[in-house]
Amino acid sequence: MTGDNGKGKQGGKAQQYGVTPQSVDFNDWYNEVVKKADLADNSPVAGAMVVRPYGSALWENIVRWLDDRFKATGHESLVFPTLIPMGFITKEADHVEGFAPELFTVNKIGTEVLAEPYVMRPTSETIIGHMWAGWLNSYRDLPFLHYQWGSVFRAELRTKAFLRTSEFYWHEGHTAHADEPEARAEVRQMLDIYHEFCRDVLALPVVRGEKTESERFAGAVATYSIEGMMRDGKALQSGTSHYLGQNFSRAFDVKYQTREQKEEFAHTTSWAISSRIIGAIIMTHGDDAGLIMPPRIAPIQVVVIPVGRKENFDEMVAEGEQLAAELRAQGVRVRVDKRDGVTNGFKYNDWELKGVPVRVELGPRDLESGVVVVKSRNADDKETLPRAEAVAGMTARLDGIHTWLLDRATEYLRSHTLEVDDYDAFKQAIENGNWVRAYHCGDADCEKAIKDDTKATTRNVPLDDAEFFSERGEGTCVRCSKPSAYGKRVIFGRQY
Amino acid sequence: MTGDNGKGKQGGKAQQYGVTPQSVDFNDWYNEVVKKADLADNSPVAGAMVVRPYGSALWENIVRWLDDRFKATGHESLVFPTLIPMGFITKEADHVEGFAPELFTVNKIGTEVLAEPYVMRPTSETIIGHMWAGWLNSYRDLPFLHYQWGSVFRAELRTKAFLRTSEFYWHEGHTAHADEPEARAEVRQMLDIYHEFCRDVLALPVVRGEKTESERFAGAVATYSIEGMMRDGKALQSGTSHYLGQNFSRAFDVKYQTREQKEEFAHTTSWAISSRIIGAIIMTHGDDAGLIMPPRIAPIQVVVIPVGRKENFDEMVAEGEQLAAELRAQGVRVRVDKRDGVTNGFKYNDWELKGVPVRVELGPRDLESGVVVVKSRNADDKETLPRAEAVAGMTARLDGIHTWLLDRATEYLRSHTLEVDDYDAFKQAIENGNWVRAYHCGDADCEKAIKDDTKATTRNVPLDDAEFFSERGEGTCVRCSKPSAYGKRVIFGRQY
Repeated sequence: MTGDNGKGKQGGKAQQYGVTPQSVDFNDWYNEVVKKADLADNSPVAGAMVVRPYGSALWENIVRWLDDRFKATGHESLVFPTLIPMGFITKEADHVEGFAPELFTVNKIGTEVLAEPYVMRPTSETIIGHMWAGWLNSYRDLPFLHYQWGSVFRAELRTKAFLRTSEFYWHEGHTAHADEPEARAEVRQMLDIYHEFCRDVLALPVVRGEKTESERFAGAVATYSIEGMMRDGKALQSGTSHYLGQNFSRAFDVKYQTREQKEEFAHTTSWAISSRIIGAIIMTHGDDAGLIMPPRIAPIQVVVIPVGRKENFDEMVAEGEQLAAELRAQGVRVRVDKRDGVTNGFKYNDWELKGVPVRVELGPRDLESGVVVVKSRNADDKETLPRAEAVAGMTARLDGIHTWLLDRATEYLRSHTLEVDDYDAFKQAIENGNWVRAYHCGDADCEKAIKDDTKATTRNVPLDDAEFFSERGEGTCVRCSKPSAYGKRVIFGRQY
Repeated sequence: MTGDNGKGKQGGKAQQYGVTPQSVDFNDWYNEVVKKADLADNSPVAGAMVVRPYGSALWENIVRWLDDRFKATGHESLVFPTLIPMGFITKEADHVEGFAPELFTVNKIGTEVLAEPYVMRPTSETIIGHMWAGWLNSYRDLPFLHYQWGSVFRAELRTKAFLRTSEFYWHEGHTAHADEPEARAEVRQMLDIYHEFCRDVLALPVVRGEKTESERFAGAVATYSIEGMMRDGKALQSGTSHYLGQNFSRAFDVKYQTREQKEEFAHTTSWAISSRIIGAIIMTHGDDAGLIMPPRIAPIQVVVIPVGRKENFDEMVAEGEQLAAELRAQGVRVRVDKRDGVTNGFKYNDWELKGVPVRVELGPRDLESGVVVVKSRNADDKETLPRAEAVAGMTARLDGIHTWLLDRATEYLRSHTLEVDDYDAFKQAIENGNWVRAYHCGDADCEKAIKDDTKATTRNVPLDDAEFFSERGEGTCVRCSKPSAYGKRVIFGRQY
């Protein structure tokens, strides 16, 4: 995404009106929304984006919610270096195989050429394992419940803001436990927190499940994911939680003395949600007019637009500030649009494109009659309401928009996931922008053959208590007709 | 600081008791406190540290306070890439001269050797200037009031946790304005916010002043700093705010159309406080027992220690949790120390070393009498107080400790800053661990000669409204006897 970095995005221009409709070109729609809503811009660094204030405010809200939950569940933040000695990456065999092609290499510091180069972290299991080895003595020290916020670096050939960038933003959780059951309970706890966050905060329905072997994290014993469906039918892996067994603890000598005075390697986990979750928000909720921000995470929940003419504009702005103060007293995040160089129509379109959940228009005549005009981003029509009622009902209105978004996305997910037992039907369903639920033999080569034929991969095997697609059953592989593995249907789909 | 990474720091060992006294070896004291208080550890990456949970919690509190102030003063966060094209750094002549010897160079991504390497940002003026050029059209777009949190990379030969690390953590503020007065007002506003933060939150007295030319930021027209005095008499530059004039906007073509339809380059600023402020907290407030955390930023303000014996320990822990809940209801940050494998004496020493401002001991006999034992970290003696009184008075007690720390540090700063007019006295005062206030000719070569003789550099020229050392006056240069510059005495000192 080396940038055109063109003029004309700050300060509002008439050209900002509108984006390519989703139905015409989903990809263009996405790129235009990202830029015109001021979420992000291209950068002069290959594969990296610049996150602009509106995108940064959204990310800060995401960070805040998750960080509070991590702390509430006993986790502690740390800060590890961005660089990792190259030799660390090669210590866990699967890990290096997975990441070697994507590494950023630092070969020089000042004028000194390094004998052993550093890599910019693609993830931090290795250096954290190294540090843990120094901190861990006894079973009394465990568990380690650690996480850090930061960016990581993985080369991307074709980049797309938030979805695939060579530098991206995330937390990485890393925990170490005395035994496997405790470690697996942690893996599940974090997956469930991610699920709760997506459903209850972002209004994103996601399927919790376990990844098949070929889709596992490099070095993991088991990888679990939450998978969401975008409005073009593609999947977006929205969060992962890994049980790493003793793979990394053996590689980095993370061992402890048990209660019985024996030496034992720790069982470790790691888990992450990254800035690509913003891509999921955009592509699950957006429409032809632009973004729709889920209200509970929206940087601006309500925009107040004074619509007076020149002679009473200042008065209307003052009225708008008063209304905003009343809404803020209820904990609502409000912006008053005081720009005087642009038309009301421009403002309406601008805030719709930015996906602000509720717009309140405040005009002099309405004000005389004690009413305001309210427009929910998901509604077709404006409503004229008594001012007091509009204020008092705002929190419920925002909750209603949350529910509307979640219901709509859930309906989309359900209706675009087809149960298929025949390979031609499989190919057709994928081609038409669906997910497929199918029995599969569990063989990695067979998965690869399906991927080569259809570009679809296994998304996950839903957990027994996932709210979607969790029914148990047996059948024959949709492609090769061998007996099915997993005890249930597997979800296939194309993915971001 | 490539690491020993030795065993024995987590979980508490008897060896953890005590640190080398400040008076015996200030440097050893510092390094031991940092490690034993679990603030930070060495890392396997040359020059980089690992910030451990207690240090990370402290940094998070610092970030939260500053971030709220930045937003309250109209600034917006953004996220720029960590990498910068090498060619950008060389565009501003002074800038490249300042930073070239310290750069981390990325020469390879995946298997591709780069024709033009990237550098890991030492600071982001250049890439931000580049992006601004694309976003700025008209005077209506200004000001840009931007900042970002992140880490930056500057090679360090001799590293020291928080003070000099090759990767460090900070915010960098970057703003662009239509004219010089507005830009200079911004520079001053941020310096004053830093000053307020140090004094009112960290209990650090600092001197606001302008840097002399030879101490300016590479590329700045004027650099302002806040300077604090550590307990060994050295200065620590604790924050900086730069007026960059049109230097960077010319280099990166950051121009706009004025109200009169003319093209003009923007006037830009930058400002920062980094993780080295944690070094200032340690070295200003610490004593022979370890850290003293300024209460308003302390991760743990009160530690409650149940001191029952085995048979009633659980009961005392429950009582401790009850007490903690009452304190939390007042907004106090409390930890109950429930460890059962260590002695009370160990716990007392451990929390004193970590600098927790107040300790409350809760024993079964005291509880029967309705009292608790309270020990302020800055007091010599314990107090036995009615339980209700201890709870009700906690906020005032914490405020009292803040004031005590600020007063003590202010007294230290004042008594260790000597007004000197003679060069031998100058050298002696510096050698004895003081700052010196002296007249100086303003010549850079003369400054350099003083530095070569004494290792002391100019700290700053205090502003007229700085609360310390701001008196105006004229004299002759303390070293070369030429007429004085600046209209007042300059502060000299050795520095971290």
